[in-house]
Amino acid sequence: MTASRRTPGRRPGGPDTRGEILQAARESFADKGFAATSIRAVARQAEVDAALVHHYFDSKEELFIEAMAIPVDPRLIAANIVGGPREETGRRIATAFLGVWESPEGQQRMKALFRSVVSSDEVARMMREGITQMIVQPVSQMLDVPDAQLRVSLVATQLVGVAVVRYLVGLEPVASVDVGVLIDRLAPVLQQYLTG
Amino acid sequence: MTASRRTPGRRPGGPDTRGEILQAARESFADKGFAATSIRAVARQAEVDAALVHHYFDSKEELFIEAMAIPVDPRLIAANIVGGPREETGRRIATAFLGVWESPEGQQRMKALFRSVVSSDEVARMMREGITQMIVQPVSQMLDVPDAQLRVSLVATQLVGVAVVRYLVGLEPVASVDVGVLIDRLAPVLQQYLTG
Repeated sequence: MTASRRTPGRRPGGPDTRGEILQAARESFADKGFAATSIRAVARQAEVDAALVHHYFDSKEELFIEAMAIPVDPRLIAANIVGGPREETGRRIATAFLGVWESPEGQQRMKALFRSVVSSDEVARMMREGITQMIVQPVSQMLDVPDAQLRVSLVATQLVGVAVVRYLVGLEPVASVDVGVLIDRLAPVLQQYLTG
Repeated sequence: MTASRRTPGRRPGGPDTRGEILQAARESFADKGFAATSIRAVARQAEVDAALVHHYFDSKEELFIEAMAIPVDPRLIAANIVGGPREETGRRIATAFLGVWESPEGQQRMKALFRSVVSSDEVARMMREGITQMIVQPVSQMLDVPDAQLRVSLVATQLVGVAVVRYLVGLEPVASVDVGVLIDRLAPVLQQYLTG
């Protein structure tokens, strides 16, 4: 946020008002979690009128989905499954996820999402439904193995665990090990879950 | 703490002395960290004799485990590493952790701890330090493999991920799959991290 460089107080919408609202929302979801964040609080943080936030987003839920970029593009995930040698699927998935989380913006989004998921049953339910419908089911259909859905959800456990331990808890040495080394360790495990 | 409302100085055990010692321990672990906290310092903070702390808790490690409501005794984990055939270490670890988390009490403690870790940087720091000193370092010394600490922390990522996805997020089908099936899938992965 560049709030401190602006004249304080409410202001009309500018060229990137929507983007600034989303950034304020990410900060609020990260700091306070989903339940304690309100449209008004986000408006205050973005230094705009609450009506302007409502102009862009129908609800707190929509703001959350947009701010967190939750609609993980299923085509991207699917591309990782089918777009290359089958025996390197695990490596492609590890590389794709860690690539996002290693970027400051991706990491901030991921942390905010986790804090919201563990502090709100409603967000947990939204995430559970979204992941199931947008990732687990379509990817399972592509896999053509027994227990495909179980395999995909086991991949999810390993990815979530790395996110929590490396970025949120900061347990060493996994927290600061080179990302290439980490991918080397994760790739065979994800592969084993998917096709082993 | 209610110390300010009491006569200062050492005092004998009262009806909730154990609870007061745990509260003093939480404050000390939070203020000074795991390494710098001693039984004597906790006794001083709780305004009781060190012998009384020892009456309730055998060691600083036990005090930490109880104070933080850690759902699995880290010493049990260490015992699982060394107490049996090396090639079944992964299975023993998976069985130990899931055994605790499948019980209502163990699951409740795990969820509470996880929510605290994710929402509080201070709790995350305490856990990071405690886990490092009580699990990662001693277990790594027993393993006698290269990168032992990295291996142990990778095991942590997989266990944490299962805890989050199965019990907190409830993503199917991993959320309701039979625990025996889950152990069968996790065991070779943990084994691969440790000795592969």
